[in-house]
Amino acid sequence: MSNTLGKLFTVTGFGESHGPCVGVIVDGCPAGLPLSAADIQKDVDLRRAGFSPASTPRHEKDKVEILSGVFNGRTTGAPICLLIENEDVDDADYEKIKDLLRPGHADFTAHVKYGGFNDARGGGMFSGRITAGFVMVGAIAKKILSTIGVETLAHTVSIGGIAAKSVSYEQVRQRAIKDSLFCADAAASAKMLAAIDAVKKQGDSLGGIIEGVALDVPVGLGEPLFDTLDGDLAKALLAIPAVKGVEFGAGFAAARKKGSENNDAFALKNGKIVTTTNNAGGILGGISNGMPLVVRVAIKPTSSIALEQSTVDIKKMKQTTIKVTGRHDACIVPRAVPVVSAMMAVVLCDFALRAGLISRVLK
Amino acid sequence: MSNTLGKLFTVTGFGESHGPCVGVIVDGCPAGLPLSAADIQKDVDLRRAGFSPASTPRHEKDKVEILSGVFNGRTTGAPICLLIENEDVDDADYEKIKDLLRPGHADFTAHVKYGGFNDARGGGMFSGRITAGFVMVGAIAKKILSTIGVETLAHTVSIGGIAAKSVSYEQVRQRAIKDSLFCADAAASAKMLAAIDAVKKQGDSLGGIIEGVALDVPVGLGEPLFDTLDGDLAKALLAIPAVKGVEFGAGFAAARKKGSENNDAFALKNGKIVTTTNNAGGILGGISNGMPLVVRVAIKPTSSIALEQSTVDIKKMKQTTIKVTGRHDACIVPRAVPVVSAMMAVVLCDFALRAGLISRVLK
Amino acid sequence: MSNTLGKLFTVTGFGESHGPCVGVIVDGCPAGLPLSAADIQKDVDLRRAGFSPASTPRHEKDKVEILSGVFNGRTTGAPICLLIENEDVDDADYEKIKDLLRPGHADFTAHVKYGGFNDARGGGMFSGRITAGFVMVGAIAKKILSTIGVETLAHTVSIGGIAAKSVSYEQVRQRAIKDSLFCADAAASAKMLAAIDAVKKQGDSLGGIIEGVALDVPVGLGEPLFDTLDGDLAKALLAIPAVKGVEFGAGFAAARKKGSENNDAFALKNGKIVTTTNNAGGILGGISNGMPLVVRVAIKPTSSIALEQSTVDIKKMKQTTIKVTGRHDACIVPRAVPVVSAMMAVVLCDFALRAGLISRVLK
Amino acid sequence: MSNTLGKLFTVTGFGESHGPCVGVIVDGCPAGLPLSAADIQKDVDLRRAGFSPASTPRHEKDKVEILSGVFNGRTTGAPICLLIENEDVDDADYEKIKDLLRPGHADFTAHVKYGGFNDARGGGMFSGRITAGFVMVGAIAKKILSTIGVETLAHTVSIGGIAAKSVSYEQVRQRAIKDSLFCADAAASAKMLAAIDAVKKQGDSLGGIIEGVALDVPVGLGEPLFDTLDGDLAKALLAIPAVKGVEFGAGFAAARKKGSENNDAFALKNGKIVTTTNNAGGILGGISNGMPLVVRVAIKPTSSIALEQSTVDIKKMKQTTIKVTGRHDACIVPRAVPVVSAMMAVVLCDFALRAGLISRVLK
Repeated sequence: MSNTLGKLFTVTGFGESHGPCVGVIVDGCPAGLPLSAADIQKDVDLRRAGFSPASTPRHEKDKVEILSGVFNGRTTGAPICLLIENEDVDDADYEKIKDLLRPGHADFTAHVKYGGFNDARGGGMFSGRITAGFVMVGAIAKKILSTIGVETLAHTVSIGGIAAKSVSYEQVRQRAIKDSLFCADAAASAKMLAAIDAVKKQGDSLGGIIEGVALDVPVGLGEPLFDTLDGDLAKALLAIPAVKGVEFGAGFAAARKKGSENNDAFALKNGKIVTTTNNAGGILGGISNGMPLVVRVAIKPTSSIALEQSTVDIKKMKQTTIKVTGRHDACIVPRAVPVVSAMMAVVLCDFALRAGLISRVLK
Repeated sequence: MSNTLGKLFTVTGFGESHGPCVGVIVDGCPAGLPLSAADIQKDVDLRRAGFSPASTPRHEKDKVEILSGVFNGRTTGAPICLLIENEDVDDADYEKIKDLLRPGHADFTAHVKYGGFNDARGGGMFSGRITAGFVMVGAIAKKILSTIGVETLAHTVSIGGIAAKSVSYEQVRQRAIKDSLFCADAAASAKMLAAIDAVKKQGDSLGGIIEGVALDVPVGLGEPLFDTLDGDLAKALLAIPAVKGVEFGAGFAAARKKGSENNDAFALKNGKIVTTTNNAGGILGGISNGMPLVVRVAIKPTSSIALEQSTVDIKKMKQTTIKVTGRHDACIVPRAVPVVSAMMAVVLCDFALRAGLISRVLK
Repeated sequence: MSNTLGKLFTVTGFGESHGPCVGVIVDGCPAGLPLSAADIQKDVDLRRAGFSPASTPRHEKDKVEILSGVFNGRTTGAPICLLIENEDVDDADYEKIKDLLRPGHADFTAHVKYGGFNDARGGGMFSGRITAGFVMVGAIAKKILSTIGVETLAHTVSIGGIAAKSVSYEQVRQRAIKDSLFCADAAASAKMLAAIDAVKKQGDSLGGIIEGVALDVPVGLGEPLFDTLDGDLAKALLAIPAVKGVEFGAGFAAARKKGSENNDAFALKNGKIVTTTNNAGGILGGISNGMPLVVRVAIKPTSSIALEQSTVDIKKMKQTTIKVTGRHDACIVPRAVPVVSAMMAVVLCDFALRAGLISRVLK
Repeated sequence: MSNTLGKLFTVTGFGESHGPCVGVIVDGCPAGLPLSAADIQKDVDLRRAGFSPASTPRHEKDKVEILSGVFNGRTTGAPICLLIENEDVDDADYEKIKDLLRPGHADFTAHVKYGGFNDARGGGMFSGRITAGFVMVGAIAKKILSTIGVETLAHTVSIGGIAAKSVSYEQVRQRAIKDSLFCADAAASAKMLAAIDAVKKQGDSLGGIIEGVALDVPVGLGEPLFDTLDGDLAKALLAIPAVKGVEFGAGFAAARKKGSENNDAFALKNGKIVTTTNNAGGILGGISNGMPLVVRVAIKPTSSIALEQSTVDIKKMKQTTIKVTGRHDACIVPRAVPVVSAMMAVVLCDFALRAGLISRVLK
């Protein structure tokens, strides 16, 4: 186990899907930041089941509690413990399949690593539910970043192979938040919804691609050789269950280009140095270059499907089949969107503190 | 700056392209491992310029020196300092363009971050030359991993859009090492070489994709929530200059699949639990599942190209153009191949130590 | 802020004296360890106010809750969140003196560091109450260490200059736990109690010295150069409020000895290498040598005293006087004793994991 | 092994007593700091053998080399590798006693921990020689601290029980540096020298106490709960071989005082909040309070003595005796003095960076 992320702004997660709660400790938050449970609740609600038609019917209130680190409506500089109690836990579905390894899940690897002592109900700490904690800390990170004018956004750019058309970041900001799939292209979103609906009826699932964008990032965030901005972002994003790939700017497409096509020319704009294109995705040499930071993550299709799959009964060590019933999202892409922007904010906040750009006391 | 990677098996890099040397400190290496400079030299030679027709004519001996941590031919348990002196340094090309920001390079971001005090000659610490240090520590990591039967391989799977056909890992092991582009498909390699030759003549460059594979990885490596095996691999691989994306198993392709297509069914094989496909790339829930660990990295085309590009003179703050002359690889993909397998070995070694699978004393 | 201690077995603390709770996240605990709230409660009760006549009348139940990481009575390998709610909080005393800097307390330094946003009630996160969390994680560490036969003890060796006579560790084990001051010398304990009683009547306070001992520590714990066993123990012990000094074995007395007096001669005993004396306190070169690990910490007299003291009103920036009323221990030494053995256990557990001596799964 | 200290300003040590060199990597040094080998050499020379009559006759030039991170006379922001080659190595004395465990040394613990593969010649990495690296990085830290007006001093306050009389820090600054024992009290120094001379003739050795002082430390350095200023200083100082105890301000004497005697009253002085005494040693709640930071370390008598001692031959597993011949300091206290101020500077530099008080670019 290693449940702490970050160097100056650190996140320690805890909790399991079917345990008493999920939560997070945020350490290194500057003192003086106005903060209420409501500030955080807003972001958590975006991730909550039921927001989108694609999501599971597990309806939880997901009520954010602040257990420490806030006094008189402001952060104190002490570690902030944030908690969401699990209210709507149903072990029945789990009991039926508890010895069957669900394909695509961590059941097998967790069983071996923890000698069968892991809490496997609902995936335990490997459940997507743990990301509610990521969103909580992300809400704080976003508030901190706003003090230096940095904003993080995320939106769905494809689901099941259906791609949204490219729009400006201003349009992303305005439209994605209103769309049930967090997609800024309404026409594509409608097609994605239809596709999700279709696979749902088949007992199947879909994946997709989420794009995260950070705007007005100052030049100079990132600490090469090893704590590069892209490296630490990739690590943080891969902590989101179901992410199988991360690319920056042109990403894998860059591998097919010539240098003359892929290099971003430098130019002057209002006395500032910019690049005329952004194939680098805002990062050069592991350091932010002031252009929009652009990252895309590949989300695999939901592993829990109702269709029959081959598997192994780990107790009997016998081959068998499994149908994963219970409440599952046919596509978790929309629910992961707020998590992507949250994790970006967390990493950027850490680097901004490391670069000395954020005061330890915010007034 | 943050130049240390790993938790129990750590790498601290140092050195610049045109300084006295590049080097690395390896900490946490178990005592008793037989180790000579020759063991490391072997891997370093694979990365060296001149091995491949695609590479720069800068011919260095790249002679590995061990400065500490080895006594009587075995590691002592003390930190191992490894050094390669820079012999063939030519500042002339650099002097001509020192105020011009080379597109695609870290010149601009480093200049801002370090207030212009960075050693920009040849890219300084952002030069690909720093990866000679990665290869040195990778050589040690590979020796350590061999004590538990783990092997890491890497090979070129595409250059400039030309894809190698898929072959078995056994074929990769045997063929890639003999190919000047580290490509296991000889026919594709020939086409790639021709493509590189063509862009070289145009003063342009190409990128590509490298696949890394780790075989016989024990089940259970990786430390979720945050120190996942994929997360830490991605971070380590993104420390290699020019990497713009990382994906595991089916990766971005998984985003277009259905759950029923992407899930790897579990099965029993010789009394062991395996998966019948490997879309997960050997990682479930951030933990190795015993299947081959498969990761692909996107390498952007070499940023240094002879073609004229628009840029800015940072001293005069004026727009201008640049032609990056000097000795440069038209395609750095083959030189990055040994670096990919080295970084995989480094990360796996750290996790194997964290999992308690490697003795602190090897006899 | 930096609220995480340890490398493989990590503790993250949170909570304030007058907030909703104090708590701790334990990460890296092996899976399969039998663990209940009652196991932890036992140790927490030893630290609780009211146990000793020297202690404050603040009577809290200090009821331990496990929020994560335990399932079916055993640890799961996931992070363990432990919580104690604050029940008996009284802000009245605090309100009267909230702008007056209490001598000996962190009021001033916290005020400056956190820009006045810190929760200063009862000292906030600088309160001794935070050590309830240390004791909780210590209880887990002790259970883990018991699987390899290591035991940590602590006892009061002096209070207000009254020294306990030296006794065997076996006597310490048996007697200290039954003494209200955790002193193994009953006669000295009686004198200490009388001395505490006397200063209490004067509105004054006393300090003292606690000795921690770890028995049956395997040879080889500690990771020089920097993560030495003594270095990490000292750091952990200095996190206990009121500790002003730490010494190992002969400690400061060694500075007055000759080498021939201070060196511990090596000898063979039952085929094992031992030392005939233990001036080294069980540590040579930062590594445990198998002899009893002996550390002493100096505890300053309780800073909160009823006597009038000169101070500054930080709001008015005026000199004034303060009498710190409210419920305070006239001597916190006995309450710190369980904290000392807890912190020793935490550090030893981390090093035993790092040395590969504790399995990741305990069966 | 764990050879890295610090969070933002990190030190990674390497090298052995009888290997090719000792060295250190400094990471996190701001860019733009004027730095030459001569700046560092000055401090290294203070630690060098032969400076003091108490020291060993091993005469090394200890010539500092900068291998990276400095360009055009200024730091670049890249990691700085500093090296001192070992020139005057004599294995003859070692060969005679290589299987005999030297009492007081790490021979036994290192042998067990590293399975006998450690380089035991001259103590290997456990040799005091490794502290030459500490002094090198300390020289850099001092230069950085001088940009915010912080100064670290150290002086000998007792040797063999002979105590120097207390003098002002201004007198310490002026006198200690000129004294062969770094003692600010000339009369005491003369007695100490005589005492050292006497034990030297007996083939014996002496220890002592060094006081470190940091002046003009800003209020607010230190990161509780765990990364307290005192905790991290203690850890860093215990990395110096032979240190067996660390105390701050009144230290162990505080344990014998009443609260009314030990508390430092607050007062206003020139509009600033100060304390009228300094029993806290400049640290309250783990955070600097702006008063002089005062720490004392106990140095045990040199373990290498010419007198016959009982020991064990680890190869034959037989009891025997040993006389440790070769060149050894009869008292290493004076040579450790520059190391104490160096380590204080290193820790303070790290905390000043963490507090955001030092710019990442120094102009």
